[in-house]
Amino acid sequence: MLSEVSNSFWGFFKSDSKERSFRKSVEQIIGEKPGNPLLYQLAFRHTSASKETNIGGFRESNERLEYLGDSVLGMIVAEYLFKKYPFKDEGFLTEIRSRIVNRESLNVLARKIGLERLIEFDGQRVAHNRTSMYGDAMEALIGAIYLDKGFRFTKKFILKKLIANYFDLDTVIQTNTNYKSILLSWSQQEGKRVTFEIIQENGKHHHKEFVAQVSVDGEAVSKGGGWNKKKAEQEAARRACEALEIKS
Amino acid sequence: MLSEVSNSFWGFFKSDSKERSFRKSVEQIIGEKPGNPLLYQLAFRHTSASKETNIGGFRESNERLEYLGDSVLGMIVAEYLFKKYPFKDEGFLTEIRSRIVNRESLNVLARKIGLERLIEFDGQRVAHNRTSMYGDAMEALIGAIYLDKGFRFTKKFILKKLIANYFDLDTVIQTNTNYKSILLSWSQQEGKRVTFEIIQENGKHHHKEFVAQVSVDGEAVSKGGGWNKKKAEQEAARRACEALEIKS
Repeated sequence: MLSEVSNSFWGFFKSDSKERSFRKSVEQIIGEKPGNPLLYQLAFRHTSASKETNIGGFRESNERLEYLGDSVLGMIVAEYLFKKYPFKDEGFLTEIRSRIVNRESLNVLARKIGLERLIEFDGQRVAHNRTSMYGDAMEALIGAIYLDKGFRFTKKFILKKLIANYFDLDTVIQTNTNYKSILLSWSQQEGKRVTFEIIQENGKHHHKEFVAQVSVDGEAVSKGGGWNKKKAEQEAARRACEALEIKS
Repeated sequence: MLSEVSNSFWGFFKSDSKERSFRKSVEQIIGEKPGNPLLYQLAFRHTSASKETNIGGFRESNERLEYLGDSVLGMIVAEYLFKKYPFKDEGFLTEIRSRIVNRESLNVLARKIGLERLIEFDGQRVAHNRTSMYGDAMEALIGAIYLDKGFRFTKKFILKKLIANYFDLDTVIQTNTNYKSILLSWSQQEGKRVTFEIIQENGKHHHKEFVAQVSVDGEAVSKGGGWNKKKAEQEAARRACEALEIKS
């Protein structure tokens, strides 16, 4: 009887064994049995594999969960850094947070914890080694965990399973990947002309924010902000590397 | 004896009665006695009134709390909208959130809940009706509440005291302040030439993001992003209005 109920519930999945193995995988990643496995299914459904719903034109994919997870992750990392560095200013905290939660870093993290094999996508519509699909799924997973298990569990997951295992904060702080030089050496190889320009300054005094723009052969490629010109250029260079798919 | 302890603890404040009245004000705003009033003091200390600490050059102001509060507010509003609009996509959720938590909206909110009279600033260093001081203090207050009272209390504070009291979501969604037209009518009054330009397109397909730039008399004033050209222009126009201090 119980198994019948469970069967009809799980009829959503293609097969019982597939479903069991999915639940097992999620459990291995988050460290506890999933309460609502459907949430995790959704977290791993890339938009290329989105499903039409009954609600006029609304297609279900992991994008909403990604939006939620992004904000949960950002907040928990913000608090963590706030408490870890009581005498560092908000510029430092913002910078270190962005090094932890940027798309590239989340892409790497997602592969490290094994999300790769769980993601559902349409291979014909995605060149899957070239997208932010993994990082997006990482954020969506955090959104799913938050809805399924609540704030405390999610905080523990992020701090113990992600940050403690995969980030050495001292290294994060010291390792200042020099995207500007990566970009410039790429430009020499490819025979392109790369230019940097500060195109905006917002705020006054120590509230100042700069925006730098990177152009390749005269065409704007990316922009990035920072609390000094150097940071802004680095951020713009990082985004240019991302946009142009330049590997470091 | 107790009062001695309490006196020495409160010696930090200029006077007992001033301190009592401060605690009362905080209690009125947050709906519960503050556990650690010093946190709230810090939340209301604008950077112009920042105090030097014993730790080499580090000046204490509300900026760190603002960083924390910003992320807490963003997350709680994200979850609220996520649950309230189950069939809206992340573009909609992001847009509505930014209408609620943008600097201008927080400035108004801060005045409405009475933060104005609590903020400590150096009037000679701030033209206080022209800054984002109130919105910053609003965020810093949220950071202080979070540290003092924890996640659940802060969530209730944001949803019941702020969102429910001061935002009519239907109106927020419908009221699409047309910053572009505000900017254009200003330009006619002032005899300036305002131009809009899409200077960047990121991503592909429905992940696209556009960046628009506003120039006044040929000089770039602001940029804004959005998931379509119109949104990007509106956001750029909103920031231009902010930067040029144009009132609607």
